[in-house]
Amino acid sequence: MRIDVMTLFPEMCERVYTESIVGRAIKKGILTVCSRNIREYSDNKHRNVDDTPYGGGEGMLMSAEPIYRCYQSLLAEGGNEPHVIYMSPKGKVLTQQRAKELALLPRLAILCGHYEGVDQRVLDEIVDEEISIGDYVLTGGELPALVLIDCVARMLEGTLSSEEGRARESHYDGLLEYPQYTKPALWRGHEVPEVLLSGHHENIERWRREMSLRETLQKRPDLLLDAVLSEQEKNFLAQLRQSCGGNHEE
Amino acid sequence: MRIDVMTLFPEMCERVYTESIVGRAIKKGILTVCSRNIREYSDNKHRNVDDTPYGGGEGMLMSAEPIYRCYQSLLAEGGNEPHVIYMSPKGKVLTQQRAKELALLPRLAILCGHYEGVDQRVLDEIVDEEISIGDYVLTGGELPALVLIDCVARMLEGTLSSEEGRARESHYDGLLEYPQYTKPALWRGHEVPEVLLSGHHENIERWRREMSLRETLQKRPDLLLDAVLSEQEKNFLAQLRQSCGGNHEE
Repeated sequence: MRIDVMTLFPEMCERVYTESIVGRAIKKGILTVCSRNIREYSDNKHRNVDDTPYGGGEGMLMSAEPIYRCYQSLLAEGGNEPHVIYMSPKGKVLTQQRAKELALLPRLAILCGHYEGVDQRVLDEIVDEEISIGDYVLTGGELPALVLIDCVARMLEGTLSSEEGRARESHYDGLLEYPQYTKPALWRGHEVPEVLLSGHHENIERWRREMSLRETLQKRPDLLLDAVLSEQEKNFLAQLRQSCGGNHEE
Repeated sequence: MRIDVMTLFPEMCERVYTESIVGRAIKKGILTVCSRNIREYSDNKHRNVDDTPYGGGEGMLMSAEPIYRCYQSLLAEGGNEPHVIYMSPKGKVLTQQRAKELALLPRLAILCGHYEGVDQRVLDEIVDEEISIGDYVLTGGELPALVLIDCVARMLEGTLSSEEGRARESHYDGLLEYPQYTKPALWRGHEVPEVLLSGHHENIERWRREMSLRETLQKRPDLLLDAVLSEQEKNFLAQLRQSCGGNHEE
């Protein structure tokens, strides 16, 4: 896969590529990520890329032309036509499922906005999809783009080892993870739950699944609506609900 | 405000601090951000910070002791006791409201997990709150921490100019933003909506509000449930719903 990032802050992104899972995917030759500085495509000698909004209002907007030229330069290089994503609070909120789908595409181009926004006309012209990473306000699209890239890079065939892949899949069954423990067995007066030291795999699996159900009920009961549960698990949940007296919030 | 970030990848964070709004808050003396490398607090000569999970399973977990020592070193420096946040898919999903509340605290410490997770005992011991930035899987807690810091830094009194602050507040009324346009008025055959060139402020305001309602209805109808709307706006929405024939998805 190839990802081109159109941004005013390419340096901000570079370091993250090398340190994260993205770096691993790049080293393995699975992924190419290329940042492009929109400022280099400015159409005036001052290299301006922003201007005041029509109709009045605070702040500056990113102009259409430099972004359009930047995008044209991607196309001019040939290869697959990219699926163009604009990181925006107006987009659909990112989900693991969408990241999985995006990981199947040969090429993405991600536009990072800044200032108070981007001239709508260039968005209408080049953008295929707007994605938001959540309902909170950030300064620009760079961090959201890095989040999306990390998420997609993990899903590319071959980025994670098959072991990691299996472990990863277990996070996808729609429940929160059970608590985990590592050495030492006794740490500052706190013991590891006995069942985990028992070597009894069946009991361990049952304990983990029950803890997942318990955590999910307490912290994210909304996730239980979509989870696939056995009859036994449904009974366990019903018991939990009863013993908590209906109060499932932390 | 002071934020300490406990991480295995401090270099990944540093660059982002300087480039983003966080850098501006730091320069203004409103915010101090300090990354600490958990590896420096390892209790063995190989500087290991991870080990295999009890009870079996793929991947490695971060051990309790280095994290605990790292945290103790923060406390030893004196000052306010930090509110400790663990970036985790098990946490409550970040909202603008929560960022606003966190911005009122004098000191935060953010723990970034990696590998397959963190020994639960150190989480029980030091963490006050778990926060997730969304329902998708990432490699580590660093990008989520950077997202949280950007979001909180914006909300600190004095980070944004009062102009920006006013513009910012307009994003909080629970609707998606109206489309924006900047010069030139005619760009590659695409005109700016006429009303924005009219200079008629009342019409411009009404157009913007109606476009916000339209965008929100089309892209995020869930947000309309909590939005505060006038009778006139409710009527406008009802008309829109009718003319769309009940199909509000993109």
